[in-house]
Amino acid sequence: MIYSFNNDYSEGAHPRILQAMMETNLIQNDGYSLDRHTNHAKELIRHEIQREDVDVHILVGGTQTNLLGICCALRPHQAVICAETGHINVHETGAIEATGHKVLGQPTTDGKLTTAHIQKALDWHSDEHMVQPKMVYISNSTEVGTQYTKAELETISAFCRQHQLYLFMDGARMGAALTSSVNDLTLADIARLTDLFYIGGTKNGALFGETMIISHPDLKTDFRYIIKQHGAMLAKGWLLGIQFEELFQNHLFYDLAAHANEMADQLRRGITECGYSFHWNSMTNQLFPVLPNSVLEALAKDFLFSTQLVIDERHTCIRLVTSWATRQDGVDAFLAALKKLS
Amino acid sequence: MIYSFNNDYSEGAHPRILQAMMETNLIQNDGYSLDRHTNHAKELIRHEIQREDVDVHILVGGTQTNLLGICCALRPHQAVICAETGHINVHETGAIEATGHKVLGQPTTDGKLTTAHIQKALDWHSDEHMVQPKMVYISNSTEVGTQYTKAELETISAFCRQHQLYLFMDGARMGAALTSSVNDLTLADIARLTDLFYIGGTKNGALFGETMIISHPDLKTDFRYIIKQHGAMLAKGWLLGIQFEELFQNHLFYDLAAHANEMADQLRRGITECGYSFHWNSMTNQLFPVLPNSVLEALAKDFLFSTQLVIDERHTCIRLVTSWATRQDGVDAFLAALKKLS
Amino acid sequence: MIYSFNNDYSEGAHPRILQAMMETNLIQNDGYSLDRHTNHAKELIRHEIQREDVDVHILVGGTQTNLLGICCALRPHQAVICAETGHINVHETGAIEATGHKVLGQPTTDGKLTTAHIQKALDWHSDEHMVQPKMVYISNSTEVGTQYTKAELETISAFCRQHQLYLFMDGARMGAALTSSVNDLTLADIARLTDLFYIGGTKNGALFGETMIISHPDLKTDFRYIIKQHGAMLAKGWLLGIQFEELFQNHLFYDLAAHANEMADQLRRGITECGYSFHWNSMTNQLFPVLPNSVLEALAKDFLFSTQLVIDERHTCIRLVTSWATRQDGVDAFLAALKKLS
Amino acid sequence: MIYSFNNDYSEGAHPRILQAMMETNLIQNDGYSLDRHTNHAKELIRHEIQREDVDVHILVGGTQTNLLGICCALRPHQAVICAETGHINVHETGAIEATGHKVLGQPTTDGKLTTAHIQKALDWHSDEHMVQPKMVYISNSTEVGTQYTKAELETISAFCRQHQLYLFMDGARMGAALTSSVNDLTLADIARLTDLFYIGGTKNGALFGETMIISHPDLKTDFRYIIKQHGAMLAKGWLLGIQFEELFQNHLFYDLAAHANEMADQLRRGITECGYSFHWNSMTNQLFPVLPNSVLEALAKDFLFSTQLVIDERHTCIRLVTSWATRQDGVDAFLAALKKLS
Repeated sequence: MIYSFNNDYSEGAHPRILQAMMETNLIQNDGYSLDRHTNHAKELIRHEIQREDVDVHILVGGTQTNLLGICCALRPHQAVICAETGHINVHETGAIEATGHKVLGQPTTDGKLTTAHIQKALDWHSDEHMVQPKMVYISNSTEVGTQYTKAELETISAFCRQHQLYLFMDGARMGAALTSSVNDLTLADIARLTDLFYIGGTKNGALFGETMIISHPDLKTDFRYIIKQHGAMLAKGWLLGIQFEELFQNHLFYDLAAHANEMADQLRRGITECGYSFHWNSMTNQLFPVLPNSVLEALAKDFLFSTQLVIDERHTCIRLVTSWATRQDGVDAFLAALKKLS
Repeated sequence: MIYSFNNDYSEGAHPRILQAMMETNLIQNDGYSLDRHTNHAKELIRHEIQREDVDVHILVGGTQTNLLGICCALRPHQAVICAETGHINVHETGAIEATGHKVLGQPTTDGKLTTAHIQKALDWHSDEHMVQPKMVYISNSTEVGTQYTKAELETISAFCRQHQLYLFMDGARMGAALTSSVNDLTLADIARLTDLFYIGGTKNGALFGETMIISHPDLKTDFRYIIKQHGAMLAKGWLLGIQFEELFQNHLFYDLAAHANEMADQLRRGITECGYSFHWNSMTNQLFPVLPNSVLEALAKDFLFSTQLVIDERHTCIRLVTSWATRQDGVDAFLAALKKLS
Repeated sequence: MIYSFNNDYSEGAHPRILQAMMETNLIQNDGYSLDRHTNHAKELIRHEIQREDVDVHILVGGTQTNLLGICCALRPHQAVICAETGHINVHETGAIEATGHKVLGQPTTDGKLTTAHIQKALDWHSDEHMVQPKMVYISNSTEVGTQYTKAELETISAFCRQHQLYLFMDGARMGAALTSSVNDLTLADIARLTDLFYIGGTKNGALFGETMIISHPDLKTDFRYIIKQHGAMLAKGWLLGIQFEELFQNHLFYDLAAHANEMADQLRRGITECGYSFHWNSMTNQLFPVLPNSVLEALAKDFLFSTQLVIDERHTCIRLVTSWATRQDGVDAFLAALKKLS
Repeated sequence: MIYSFNNDYSEGAHPRILQAMMETNLIQNDGYSLDRHTNHAKELIRHEIQREDVDVHILVGGTQTNLLGICCALRPHQAVICAETGHINVHETGAIEATGHKVLGQPTTDGKLTTAHIQKALDWHSDEHMVQPKMVYISNSTEVGTQYTKAELETISAFCRQHQLYLFMDGARMGAALTSSVNDLTLADIARLTDLFYIGGTKNGALFGETMIISHPDLKTDFRYIIKQHGAMLAKGWLLGIQFEELFQNHLFYDLAAHANEMADQLRRGITECGYSFHWNSMTNQLFPVLPNSVLEALAKDFLFSTQLVIDERHTCIRLVTSWATRQDGVDAFLAALKKLS
């Protein structure tokens, strides 16, 4: 039996979520997220971020949420700045460009954008012969497992406000970031420092679902039109509401992410003990160890993982991902196998 | 307690579907619809339509499926012809136009397109100063509850092939059409007569899910790219697979739709017996009775339904929708109340 | 030798315009409409409309100007209301839809939009499942030769402001409207009553060129970005400036249009004297007489004109267009031929 | 009096072109490029490239021609590969993205794309989670004055055909490339080796105008629809035809470009003799010398040129552009001034 560290969306949902769906299954609800569960989930979220003046929308998937958040904000000639590794730049099949906007990917060493990167993009785009940068997109945790500190986010936020750039945080792996051992941010901080951001459910114990929080007044207007236009308005919207009710009751959202991080911590320690290093230094649930190809071939018989990049003829950086559902015996088996091969 | 005839997506899913989700919840699957359940569901569908040479994709929602089916097929200057009442023309917030294409809505009396309507649209669009009609979109059952006969579909299909127009059938309410007492079409017929069409799950017992079947070779190429670009590729795609496995095992898809139609038949008979008529003559699960406003006010205390259009100062056409989950006592209560008021 | 009444863009430019181009041909200019001629033309236009606070941009063609004016103003989910005969609805190959926006064409009897038409479109589009009407597009003169009175425009303008709809006037044939015998509008009125509008040069003696005047502050921002993005920024922009300098010096713009109308007046009188009627009652340079097919066949040997619509088996409505360059002997010959055939 | 080396579109048109416009000014023509002059120009072009089986369209401007050439060819999920310095990547305000397509800019040292660059882009885009590269865009001469040899173009062409990538050449400065002292390509070669390309008039003696030649059958279909949809169909299209008639009669196109190159050759030699070097080695009409800031300040009093990039605190790379209209005394004056300052 093969065990997968391929990603954090290999299993269904936390049992409490399925249970809640079963219990409410035959109760009639209003459609299109105008139901009691969605309203309750929004209340829980607003309470969590200590803000009453935000708009909250629960959407199905991450690419969808990214494209809605960006196309709702930009006029036709405006562009979004992001790290070259940003999900919107590479892994969304041109979803942003399909809404008409250029993505200005900036090379970084660790997947994190700095004000220097943003300034450089501004400097290059100086007049009407070029697109106009108007939004900054960052991910937390990033696509390479790194994360922003409070100080870093404050700096970026201040810079964006000074330059009238919207700041959008992709939180598909927000749980992993917030429960990482080196985190000092809260959802309340993030709501205060960004213009819009989202909290990922798909990768943290929901069947699906991403909750968008919009704090900038300009971006609130008519957001439901934008949702509908992109086919992103779920008919049975309460299914999203129910899931986020469960996640934000009794601390479930944080507990699930903490489990994923704990599993990753064990893997990180074990891999380090075997003498291997990491291509990016992540303290979240995605790890990027560099391993000999011979070891990888052997591991591949019992474990699934993805290849990230070729380091040299004999070494490859792989990606290992843990999740809310990762089993202790899976981690133990992986480390035992690695130890044996090293 | 108020009972709702507002639509056919007011409840969750048929219990067998939830049961299957529970049972498989912690089994690891490949993401993005590359899993065993989706593959099995595709096999069941191909078997049902007696075609091995079609591409099958299971998507989350109807507007999404419409926009993907259209934008995958059209070059930038091409347009789609539909009934003025077509879902894509009115109720999708310009989703088709947002992908760049004009929707050529044709006035009809019963929501059904004929070759005369299509010919008229072709006649009007004669050169490069106008858009080029390239696709015909029809819904079965239609947005006003009517449906196509086999003879009608054969005529439209032959016309489209003669004029090199793609024929796309929106099957959000396919179940209701196929199990209607006046239906003479099968899914196999539809696969043979159209270029692409879909089978709706959302309105027939699934939590969500629409299965697109593409038979025209031109439209198969790279469809997964189009899915991903529009944020329509579900991470945990097996959730779609599981639902269509259940629907197309043991005849569940047809049984659920037949129940909805049976409930509608009872309502239709009861309303007729009370002496009222219908604005459109539907033999499916959407009914459009014309009732006195005084009666409607009284009914509104105990039942939910939507207003379709104002007939005159004292009469309104409403929409009543039944579903796989409509309860016999709900129908009985509605008819009893109506009888009392008439 | 065949004489053409096909349209008002069959000849080059008024000789004064060509002369000005010759005289300045080898003088170096800044590119992209940042030159002295364009600046001077803008001054002349601002003086003409008695407004200093408007933005002026000179563009090459009408379809281009329409699509820029609309896509600069609308957010993705917003739509533009126009007469069903509106140029943007039919004769621009879906240019507006290609920028993502639905065109809501309203049936009219005379090509003119009223507040009743606009109200109807607003009534139909009530929530986020439908596009949001945000702009009203009217043409003056219209596509069928009719024109707006000051009272009519004031009514539409007040309605639009009350409903927060932008009002955009297509002035491709503005000259013909303003110099018509029944006109009571001035450019200053139009600047006051609309949010943006343009003054056509192509159909009134320029080689090409349409001058857009933007008075609404929201629409001024970054318009040059929108121009460039659509490939509409002419490298040698002073060619546009020179043409509008000539048109708005010494009353040339009005004189040319008055000539076109005078030629049309003669045709209208002559056709009426022969006992024929008109499908639309135009007092501008486009005439739509209904003539027997036998007469048309004979006329077609010596004259070019376009067929507008089939009236019955034996009668057809044609379109005759006069221009700044229409020759008196062409008009005389046409009327003589018609008289002979009648 | 200041003399400008700012660009190659600072003056009007070669006198023969204006003369031809004057002579034909009052002759009636069919609109929209369906006239005798355009037909004749197309014949001349087809003769020049020795191909009867190509489609030829004459358009107004370069950005427009680029966006039409790209959006006519790509399906929604497809992307275009180009040099990072490519005009479409930087200087067209996101025109390509506005039609929905990602531009994959590759870093180069000399503005020229190689098969290694293209292969790298293909390697990075391997599945449906990423855009699909489908076209290669190159400029000749490039945006930094360099040019392709016949051998280089043959290699790229063969690679593209092997990988089913369309090859599109931006020829806004085609004249400068073809008449450069190091050129070994002909228009016939280019027609044979690309799928579509264009010949620039705007920067080589026309008022405006770019002639697109399409040889790939897939790209020919309905191109006039694409032109019209983007507002790029000039009403008085014969103005384009007349200009290319003149350019391709009596060798005028080549003579004008040869003059621009001769002026650039003199500047290059003079600058080299003064001991300065060039950031990019161009043998065409754009030069990129690196000069001391003190020298530049002095030169700026009498000459216009643009700043390309900052080399260090004391040196800047500027761009000098010569054209068909560049005067010998202008070049002499510049070199005299430089010599005096060096």
